[in-house]
Amino acid sequence: MKKNFPLARVYSLLEPGPVVLVTTAQKGLANIMTLSWHTMIDFEPPLIGCIVSERNHSFAALKATKQCVLNIPTVEIAKQVVGCGNTSGRKVNKFEKFALTPTKAALVDAPLVAECYANIECKVIDAKLAGKYNFFILEAVKAWIDRSQKHPRTIHHLGKGVFMVAGETIKLPSKMK
Amino acid sequence: MKKNFPLARVYSLLEPGPVVLVTTAQKGLANIMTLSWHTMIDFEPPLIGCIVSERNHSFAALKATKQCVLNIPTVEIAKQVVGCGNTSGRKVNKFEKFALTPTKAALVDAPLVAECYANIECKVIDAKLAGKYNFFILEAVKAWIDRSQKHPRTIHHLGKGVFMVAGETIKLPSKMK
Repeated sequence: MKKNFPLARVYSLLEPGPVVLVTTAQKGLANIMTLSWHTMIDFEPPLIGCIVSERNHSFAALKATKQCVLNIPTVEIAKQVVGCGNTSGRKVNKFEKFALTPTKAALVDAPLVAECYANIECKVIDAKLAGKYNFFILEAVKAWIDRSQKHPRTIHHLGKGVFMVAGETIKLPSKMK
Repeated sequence: MKKNFPLARVYSLLEPGPVVLVTTAQKGLANIMTLSWHTMIDFEPPLIGCIVSERNHSFAALKATKQCVLNIPTVEIAKQVVGCGNTSGRKVNKFEKFALTPTKAALVDAPLVAECYANIECKVIDAKLAGKYNFFILEAVKAWIDRSQKHPRTIHHLGKGVFMVAGETIKLPSKMK
């Protein structure tokens, strides 16, 4: 059961650098791509930069629809995450192939991935650097979280299929957001 | 003892999303800022995007000198990392205050932080989005690593001084870089 997650806190989901699954939908066909190359750009409204290459099947849908969802998986579905990164939506319906469940988003046409502990609905607000650097700027417009997952074990790609799994957390006195 | 680290592998240091210390130098004064908002943009030459706000003292040095070093700390110096994030170079010499050691870089004037397990010397190649989004595009020109650290416990900011410390690694069959 997913609950609303405050937009002002979206940075706390993405700033640690987890692998995400980007979902798009175009002409009734949904797709999933695996992405590690993203960064927060601003806190509120939450702006996010990400690299989606023109080699990716998702590039055209993202450019055309200007919508996507960033879904944050945990280690429990690491195999599916790697599967999504090693196949192309040109050839495969990844939801079917990897037994992932699309559910309806609130504000965008792209689906949420139900198996991910958090989902961030986004709209493309600036694609000026999409040509030169494959860089898209997104605004998060709605976010969801499964609050039953107290310590989501996100995965962080070290390259070539090696992932660091989120370990313990520490807290230090800080004035930082 | 730091060894050369291949530029083609720089992505494997940054893609998992660790907190980094950005060093700059201007007019003989070096500064350090703590940064989590970065992303890889391309593999080779390695291009990196990062957000340095005009509120940060480092903004002016980065814009003027077009050089910096991304230093990757581990949990052993987490307190210093938070200290650097909670103070301004306008008021404090952070190398002195936090007992960090500047050492000479090969290709840029900004210093390496000796206590970090990896250091990436960078040049700013595109600052067109620095005005609108505080977004700088860097090219890594030289990288260093302490090979004695087999499992560097990088830290990943979850917000408000809470950090996830890198946990175990897993390897899955993958064609991904």
